[in-house]
Amino acid sequence: MNNNIIFGRNSVIEALKSGRRNFNRILISRNLRPDAKIDLIKEYASNLGIPFVFGDKEQFIKYNEYNHQGVIAFVSPIEYIELEDFMTGHRENAAIVLLDGVEDPHNIGAIIRTCVCAGIDGIILPSRRGALINEVVEKTSAGAINHISIIKVNSPVSALQKLKENNWWVIASDHHSDDNYFDIDFLNMNFVLVMGAEHAGISKSIMNLADFKIKIPMLTEFNSLNVSAAAGIIVYEYVRQKLTAGRKHEQK
Amino acid sequence: MNNNIIFGRNSVIEALKSGRRNFNRILISRNLRPDAKIDLIKEYASNLGIPFVFGDKEQFIKYNEYNHQGVIAFVSPIEYIELEDFMTGHRENAAIVLLDGVEDPHNIGAIIRTCVCAGIDGIILPSRRGALINEVVEKTSAGAINHISIIKVNSPVSALQKLKENNWWVIASDHHSDDNYFDIDFLNMNFVLVMGAEHAGISKSIMNLADFKIKIPMLTEFNSLNVSAAAGIIVYEYVRQKLTAGRKHEQK
Repeated sequence: MNNNIIFGRNSVIEALKSGRRNFNRILISRNLRPDAKIDLIKEYASNLGIPFVFGDKEQFIKYNEYNHQGVIAFVSPIEYIELEDFMTGHRENAAIVLLDGVEDPHNIGAIIRTCVCAGIDGIILPSRRGALINEVVEKTSAGAINHISIIKVNSPVSALQKLKENNWWVIASDHHSDDNYFDIDFLNMNFVLVMGAEHAGISKSIMNLADFKIKIPMLTEFNSLNVSAAAGIIVYEYVRQKLTAGRKHEQK
Repeated sequence: MNNNIIFGRNSVIEALKSGRRNFNRILISRNLRPDAKIDLIKEYASNLGIPFVFGDKEQFIKYNEYNHQGVIAFVSPIEYIELEDFMTGHRENAAIVLLDGVEDPHNIGAIIRTCVCAGIDGIILPSRRGALINEVVEKTSAGAINHISIIKVNSPVSALQKLKENNWWVIASDHHSDDNYFDIDFLNMNFVLVMGAEHAGISKSIMNLADFKIKIPMLTEFNSLNVSAAAGIIVYEYVRQKLTAGRKHEQK
């Protein structure tokens, strides 16, 4: 199933705001209480010439597993970006997160959500390993998928090789590493952070391309960080370094 | 529904390893392929004198929404710890996370999982605001709830007052704050980190007790970090400070 349906108020609002999706129509439940977010959706829809219709409970039944909150939008699928196009247009010292085989769409959505907050420039999803964008990813991301370049690649190995040739550094999350994630300097370079699959971790062919391998230290014997928590911790270390680096210079 | 049922291999193994739950029996699907984790469960069960029985598909049908992976354990509920008992027994410079009204059991489970990895000493859950431990929390935590003190309190305000009287500091996650989470020193004190509800944030009466208010900076206009991602980022800043503080002294 393509993600041509968006469920829930925040996700619909984010997609409307982004201007990156073509809306076919928006279905709003007849039984909702007055709500500022619904008013906002109607306002956007009116301004953009998108039809919105009011529906009865029956029209929502088949979508009830999706926590739609009484709002469903029928839209064009997300447009993936080609790696080549991304590479010609990005800012200096850009940051990408590559998900190598992450399968749970909730994890993918959660990672994209955190990445957008952290100012990450792009997400690479391999088309044959792990999941791609679907409704669950979109919903879990709270609409964040509309605010970041999503790059679909057939071969993550070729993609990383191409990036490396163009002056990008590959950082792999690897719990066997001796180096902690806060021991490397994320600044003054373009980097791709690779996060591995929930159980299998990062595939060997990709690990071989890593310029840095970093681990998140465990302070107890319970060694089981979720991949979306791990991604959040690492990308925010990048944010911390970025925001405190300037400050250090000021103090000099 | 109490969490007297544990679903899934890892969650059952963690509960067995912890020694903190009384097992009534373990139900294992007759249709599973040979698997090291199932063997481990059987071995624990044999050693501990816990009966395990093999069941047909029919016996699992009513639990199918829980992603049980063919293993279900019937156990005693988790034992909550009294705040007074926790306060008499904790280590120096201990750390607690208080969830003020967090409602989604997936978020609570994810936060507990990260907290155990980060060496946090306890979790405070208010009994009348937000959710308590249930099967979904246990499963999402990957069994982490068995490895940390879970403190249930009737009044989070009274709990925080009691902690403050006993030389604990209250740190509130507050996106209105001017201070970033990496600007405060988490070391050399006992602290309670308060994370607020998904939508409402931290209640006013609790915010008034905060000694520090910290925010996670957003690098884009998209301002919507999930509470479990936010908790992970902050508790791992505490870990980073802890592990790098010692190193600084060595370098002197």
